Amino acid sequence: MSFNTFGHLFRFTTWGESHGPALGVVVDGCPAGLALTEEMIQRDLDRRKPGQSKYTTQRREADAVKILSGVFEDERTDGPRTTGTPISLMIENIDQRSKDYSEIRDKYRPGHADYTYHQKYGLRDYRGGGRSSARETAARVAAGAVARQVVDGVSIRASLVQVGPHKIDYANFDWDEVGKNPFFCADPKAAALWADYLDDVRKQGNSVGAVIEVVAENVPVGWGAPIYGKLSADLASAMMSINAVKAVEIGAGFDAAELTGIDNADQMRAGADTPYFLSNQAGGILGGISNGDPVVVRFAVKPTSSILTPRQTVTTSNEDTDVVTKGRHDPCVGIRAVPVGEAMMACVLADHKLRHRGQTGRDGAIGY
Amino acid sequence: MSFNTFGHLFRFTTWGESHGPALGVVVDGCPAGLALTEEMIQRDLDRRKPGQSKYTTQRREADAVKILSGVFEDERTDGPRTTGTPISLMIENIDQRSKDYSEIRDKYRPGHADYTYHQKYGLRDYRGGGRSSARETAARVAAGAVARQVVDGVSIRASLVQVGPHKIDYANFDWDEVGKNPFFCADPKAAALWADYLDDVRKQGNSVGAVIEVVAENVPVGWGAPIYGKLSADLASAMMSINAVKAVEIGAGFDAAELTGIDNADQMRAGADTPYFLSNQAGGILGGISNGDPVVVRFAVKPTSSILTPRQTVTTSNEDTDVVTKGRHDPCVGIRAVPVGEAMMACVLADHKLRHRGQTGRDGAIGY
Amino acid sequence: MSFNTFGHLFRFTTWGESHGPALGVVVDGCPAGLALTEEMIQRDLDRRKPGQSKYTTQRREADAVKILSGVFEDERTDGPRTTGTPISLMIENIDQRSKDYSEIRDKYRPGHADYTYHQKYGLRDYRGGGRSSARETAARVAAGAVARQVVDGVSIRASLVQVGPHKIDYANFDWDEVGKNPFFCADPKAAALWADYLDDVRKQGNSVGAVIEVVAENVPVGWGAPIYGKLSADLASAMMSINAVKAVEIGAGFDAAELTGIDNADQMRAGADTPYFLSNQAGGILGGISNGDPVVVRFAVKPTSSILTPRQTVTTSNEDTDVVTKGRHDPCVGIRAVPVGEAMMACVLADHKLRHRGQTGRDGAIGY
Amino acid sequence: MSFNTFGHLFRFTTWGESHGPALGVVVDGCPAGLALTEEMIQRDLDRRKPGQSKYTTQRREADAVKILSGVFEDERTDGPRTTGTPISLMIENIDQRSKDYSEIRDKYRPGHADYTYHQKYGLRDYRGGGRSSARETAARVAAGAVARQVVDGVSIRASLVQVGPHKIDYANFDWDEVGKNPFFCADPKAAALWADYLDDVRKQGNSVGAVIEVVAENVPVGWGAPIYGKLSADLASAMMSINAVKAVEIGAGFDAAELTGIDNADQMRAGADTPYFLSNQAGGILGGISNGDPVVVRFAVKPTSSILTPRQTVTTSNEDTDVVTKGRHDPCVGIRAVPVGEAMMACVLADHKLRHRGQTGRDGAIGY
Repeated sequence: MSFNTFGHLFRFTTWGESHGPALGVVVDGCPAGLALTEEMIQRDLDRRKPGQSKYTTQRREADAVKILSGVFEDERTDGPRTTGTPISLMIENIDQRSKDYSEIRDKYRPGHADYTYHQKYGLRDYRGGGRSSARETAARVAAGAVARQVVDGVSIRASLVQVGPHKIDYANFDWDEVGKNPFFCADPKAAALWADYLDDVRKQGNSVGAVIEVVAENVPVGWGAPIYGKLSADLASAMMSINAVKAVEIGAGFDAAELTGIDNADQMRAGADTPYFLSNQAGGILGGISNGDPVVVRFAVKPTSSILTPRQTVTTSNEDTDVVTKGRHDPCVGIRAVPVGEAMMACVLADHKLRHRGQTGRDGAIGY
Repeated sequence: MSFNTFGHLFRFTTWGESHGPALGVVVDGCPAGLALTEEMIQRDLDRRKPGQSKYTTQRREADAVKILSGVFEDERTDGPRTTGTPISLMIENIDQRSKDYSEIRDKYRPGHADYTYHQKYGLRDYRGGGRSSARETAARVAAGAVARQVVDGVSIRASLVQVGPHKIDYANFDWDEVGKNPFFCADPKAAALWADYLDDVRKQGNSVGAVIEVVAENVPVGWGAPIYGKLSADLASAMMSINAVKAVEIGAGFDAAELTGIDNADQMRAGADTPYFLSNQAGGILGGISNGDPVVVRFAVKPTSSILTPRQTVTTSNEDTDVVTKGRHDPCVGIRAVPVGEAMMACVLADHKLRHRGQTGRDGAIGY
Repeated sequence: MSFNTFGHLFRFTTWGESHGPALGVVVDGCPAGLALTEEMIQRDLDRRKPGQSKYTTQRREADAVKILSGVFEDERTDGPRTTGTPISLMIENIDQRSKDYSEIRDKYRPGHADYTYHQKYGLRDYRGGGRSSARETAARVAAGAVARQVVDGVSIRASLVQVGPHKIDYANFDWDEVGKNPFFCADPKAAALWADYLDDVRKQGNSVGAVIEVVAENVPVGWGAPIYGKLSADLASAMMSINAVKAVEIGAGFDAAELTGIDNADQMRAGADTPYFLSNQAGGILGGISNGDPVVVRFAVKPTSSILTPRQTVTTSNEDTDVVTKGRHDPCVGIRAVPVGEAMMACVLADHKLRHRGQTGRDGAIGY
Repeated sequence: MSFNTFGHLFRFTTWGESHGPALGVVVDGCPAGLALTEEMIQRDLDRRKPGQSKYTTQRREADAVKILSGVFEDERTDGPRTTGTPISLMIENIDQRSKDYSEIRDKYRPGHADYTYHQKYGLRDYRGGGRSSARETAARVAAGAVARQVVDGVSIRASLVQVGPHKIDYANFDWDEVGKNPFFCADPKAAALWADYLDDVRKQGNSVGAVIEVVAENVPVGWGAPIYGKLSADLASAMMSINAVKAVEIGAGFDAAELTGIDNADQMRAGADTPYFLSNQAGGILGGISNGDPVVVRFAVKPTSSILTPRQTVTTSNEDTDVVTKGRHDPCVGIRAVPVGEAMMACVLADHKLRHRGQTGRDGAIGY
C-alpha cells in the first residue's frame, strides 16, 4: 500500500506535520556500503530550505538533518557507510510561529486541502496545513540525497522553465546558471525577467504557477518494469505526488499529440559500441524502459493557494464567509519544487536500478 | 511490487502477448455480491476492439471474454454474483496473422519498445510487439468493466478532445455525441473534421497523436490517500502506464502554471447540505483527495510509431538500416485509448473507494 | 496487498474454484531467458494430482497445464524461453462430478471454511468448497515449477515425516525412497506401517493429520531481508497459507524451547574457503538470513475435515443439524501437501534470490 | 516489499540499532479520531523494557516514547486524537554502555546473525548486534499500543507457557496471575518453579528457550483474506519475524497432526443469535478467516545465543577461535517476548480489521 511510502526496493516513508516537533523520513532498502554523511544530505536540503530569497517563504528553518540509524563507521570503513538497514532521518521544526490559527481552523482555504482532509478524516491539524503542507517535501529531499548515492554516476539536475506565462528560451539554456539565481533557472535572461514579474505578483497579494524540468543523464538502458511499473508511470506518480502539482509530461509530452509519427519517433543509428538516437522526443523512455537517452520530465505547479487577497469560502459549519491567508508563503511554490523534483527523480531511478538488478542480475542493458 | 499488477485493494494483474494464444486479467479484491456477467464486460470490450472503422487497425478480433472464476450463481442469488474471490477473465487471440516477422525480428522499430525490451531482457517476442503491444489494453478494459460495478453510481466517460493539431470546441461538447462517431468525440464538428484529416494522414503512410479527456462524476468527497497514494498520483500512474501515453494532467493541468492564485483557487459557497465550488480548476482533487467535483484527467497519446514510411534504424547487430512497419496499425492509437482511459479511471476509483472505506469505515465524506 | 498473490519480485497470483471451468496462476517477475516447457511444469503437477493411490481423493483430473503467455521460442533460442513477461498457466477442471450439493449448500461442514466464507462474503460457491478447496494448490505447484528454474542449483525436496501419531525414524531417512511409495515418505518402514494405518482410518470413515518436512540444499548465504521480510517469516507465511496447515517450524523449531543456549547455538569452524557449522539447529537461517546450511521447514496439516462420520453442525439459518460429508476426499490431505510444500519453498527462495540480487548486486554472500 | 515494514492498511516501519542514538517506528494507516497519548504507549513499553527483574538483561533503558507526529489536540477534541497521518514514535537509547566491542567485531557469535549480516551486507554494526538486536522489538510494542486502539473491544493477552522443559499446567491458568510474576505466567505454580530453574541456568552461564501463547478474544467473524492474506499466514509471519522465534502454531497446531478428523473438527451448535463451536481446535481461524472463537497462537523462542560459556566459532578471516559473549543478556529472551507477541497480534488484527472493512464495508460478519 502506498500511503506515506514511495518506492519498492528503494523506498522511503515520510512523516511529520508543518507545526509538529519534527518531520522525517525512513529510507529502507538502501544498499550497504555507500558513503553517507549528514553533510551530503544537508547540501540538498539547503537548496530547498525556506527563507533564502524574497521569492520564498520567510519562515526560518535551519532544516538541519540528523541521521538516527542505518549508517555505521568503524576504523575499517573509509568514513561512515550505509549498513543496509533503515536510514532514519529527522529534521526538527524550529520556527513554528505561535500565531493564532483560529481564522483557518474554522474556514476552508480555497485551493487547499483543508476541506478534503476534514471531510475525509473528520478532523485535521490546521496549524500551517498540518500534513498537507509542502514542508513534507523536506523529507523527500533528504531521501533523494540518499538515492543519489545509489545511482552514483547518473546526473540529476532540474531547472525552472516557466513562471506564470513566461517561459525560458532554450537557446540560453546553461546548467551552470541554475545555481546563480534564486529561481534555479538555467536561462539567466528569463531569471532576470522573473525577478521583476514576481515582485509585482507578490506586491499584489497574489501568486503564480510554474513549470519545472528535470533531466537525468547517464541512465543505463533497461531500467523500468512493464506494464504497471513503467519508469514513465512511476515518474508520473512521483511528480504528481508533490504538493500543488497538476500535470506531468515526459519527452515531447503534450506536444506529442500534435506530431505525426514521422516527426515523433526517434530514429536510430549505429554507434561505435551501441546504437544511438537522432532525437529524444521519447524523453529517454520507450515502452516504459529507459533507452539510454536523457530522461526528461516536466511538471506544472499551480500557484500558491495561500494569498493575501480575500477569497470566497465557507466555514466548517457550511456558512458563507471570506478568507485571507496571512502568514509566510511562497509567491511561487514552484521555485522550491525544483530540488524536490530532482529528489523524486533520484528516488525513482534508485528504485528501478535495484529492481532491474533483481530481475536481471545486471545493472543495465545486455550490451552487444 | 508493480510489474503487471495495478491497484491495492481493488487490483488486477494482466498477462498475454499480442500473438500468443490468449490474453487476460485476474481481478483481485472485488467485493462480493456484485452482479457481473460476460455481457457487461463485453459491452466495454466491444468499444475498444479493433476493426470497427477505417481509422483503427483492421485486425479482426472478436475480443470475446470468458469469466473463468470469481462469479457464482445459485437459485438464491439474483443472477451471477461476484464471490469475493479472484475474477479471471480470458480473451482468446483469433487473428494472429501468420505474417513473416523476420523484418522486425532483426530490426528495432523507431518509437517502439523493441530496443529497450531486447536490451533489458536479452530476448523478445517480436510477433506484433509481444507484450509491449497495445493489445494488452483489452485486459484493462475488462478489468475496468468490473471496476464500474464497484463504483456503481459514479459516471465515468471519456472523449477524444484533440487529434493532431485539431482540438475540439468545448462549446459543442455533448456527451451524447461520443457514441455517434468513430472517434469517441463529444464535439460532432471536430469529429467531421478529423475524419478528413485522418484520411489524409493514413494515405501518407503517417500517423498522428491525440488527447483524451476522462471525466468521473458523482465521486464522493474523501477518496484518495495522501501522501504517496494521492488520487491524483494514482491517476497519473494509471494513465501514463497506457501504451504511447507521454503526458497527464488534472483539472487546469499545465495551464495552471500560467494562472495566478486568484484565478486558480476554486472558491467555495455554502450549499443546501454541503458546500460547493464556484469553479473546477482543481479537476476534483485537492491535496490528493476528491472534493466532490468531477474528476477531470487528460492524457496525450503519441502518434503510432508503426508507419508505412521508411525510417532510419539499426539492426540487433548494431548496423544501420531502414525499416518500414507493414501490417495493420491504427493511424491514431489515441482513438482506441478512449475506453482504456475510462477503464483506468474506473479501476483507480474502485481501489480508492475500498481504501477509503477500510481507513474510515465510510464510503465518502463525514458529511455535516 | 496479499490476497491471492504471493511474493514480491518473484510473485504469483492464483485464481479458480474447485468446480469452476478452470484454475490457474499468473507468475510475474520471472527473469527472462530461462528454459520452460509445459512438460517441466507437468512433472510437478503429476506428483500432486489426485487419484494416484487409494490414499488420496478419487477425483480424476489430468491436471494438464497450458502455458498461455510469457514463453517464447524462435530459431535463435535453444528451446522455449521465458521472456520476462507474465507467465499465465491454466489447468482446466474436467471431473466436476455433477453431484447434488444441496446438502452442504445449507449446512456448514465442521472444520471447513464454509461458515467463515459465508459470514465474510455473504454468499459462497459451495460446490466442492469453491475457492477454499485444496484444489487451489495445483496452481501453487505450477508456480513452484517455474520457481525451480529461477533457483536452479538449489535442491528442494520434501518428505512426509508423520502420519497421525506415527513418525518416521530419521535413521531410515533416504531421499531416494520418496518416489517409491504413495506417501512421499523417505522412510520405507514408516511408509509400510502408514499403509495399514490409513486403510483402517479410511474404513472408519475418519481421517488423520500429518507433518511434512521440506529441505532446500545449496541455498547460498545471504538470502533473506530483515526485519519483516525474513526468510523464516516468509516461509512461515508460505506454509501456513496452505490449506489445513496449523503449524510451522524451522530447524529445531518447538524443540528449541527445551534446549539450552549451549545445545542450541550452532558452533562454527573454519573451512577451506568459508566457515561451516557443526550442527544445524538453526535450520539454515540466522537473523532471518540463510547461512548456507540446508533450510529445513516442517509444517503440520490437520486431518481432512470432510469425513463420512456424522457431525453436529448448524444450518445457514442457525438451526441444529448433522452433516455427513460424502464425496471423494483424501483420508490424509497431508500426503498431497508434500509437493505443495516443495513448491512454496521454491517460490519463497526464488523471490529472495531476486530480492537479494536487487539489494546487493550479488547472488549470494560476499565471500572471502 | 516487506523489509522493515509490516502490514498493509495498518502498517508500521521500524528503524534503529541497538547502540545508535535512538530507535523508532512510523505507524501508517491508523484511522483518524482515536485517542492516543504517550502514556498509553508507555504502559506497554514498560512491560517489555529491560532490567525489571534478574531474569532479564540488566541494561537500563527508560524506553521513554515520544510522539513526533500524527496526533493532534485542539479544544474541540476530547484529548489528543489521531489524525489519519503517520504516527512517528521515537525512543532514545540511553544506556549504550561504552564497552569494548573488538571481541565480537572480529568474531561471529554462534546462534547470532553476525555471520549472515556480514556475508549479506559486507559490513555490519557489531555494537550490541546492531539492527539484529531484540531491542528492535521495543518499536513493535509501541506500534502494538496504537493497534490496540484500532481494535478496541478485542482483548489481547499473552502468557509464557513453557520455559525449557517446564510447561505450565493449564488447570492453573488464570490471566490475572500474568501481572504478578516476572515471567508473565498465568500459572503461579509454574512461575515459582521457573524462578529456581532460571537461577540455575543463569549461574551456569547458560540460557534456555520458551513458548509463548497469545490469545485474542472478541475478534469478530470474518477477518482474514484468503488465500495469501490468511489471518493465520499473517500471524505466522508476524510471530516468526520476532527475534529468536523458530516455530509458530495456531489452535491445536502440531498436535493436529496426531488427531483424527472426528476429534479435530470443531462441531457447531445453534446459539441464540449466531452459531457457536463446541471446541476450539481451530484456534479461532477456519480457511484463513476468523470464526468468532478466541484466536490462539503459540510460538517458540530459542535460548539466548549470548552466553558466558565459551563456544567454538571463527573469525571474520575464517580462522578457528572461541568466543564468550559477555555483556548483559537475558537468560531467557522468551520472557520479554510476551508483550512483543501481544503487540504483533494487535497489529495483525488491526490490519485485517481495516482490510475486511475495505473489502466488505462491514466490521465483521454478515450476521443473520
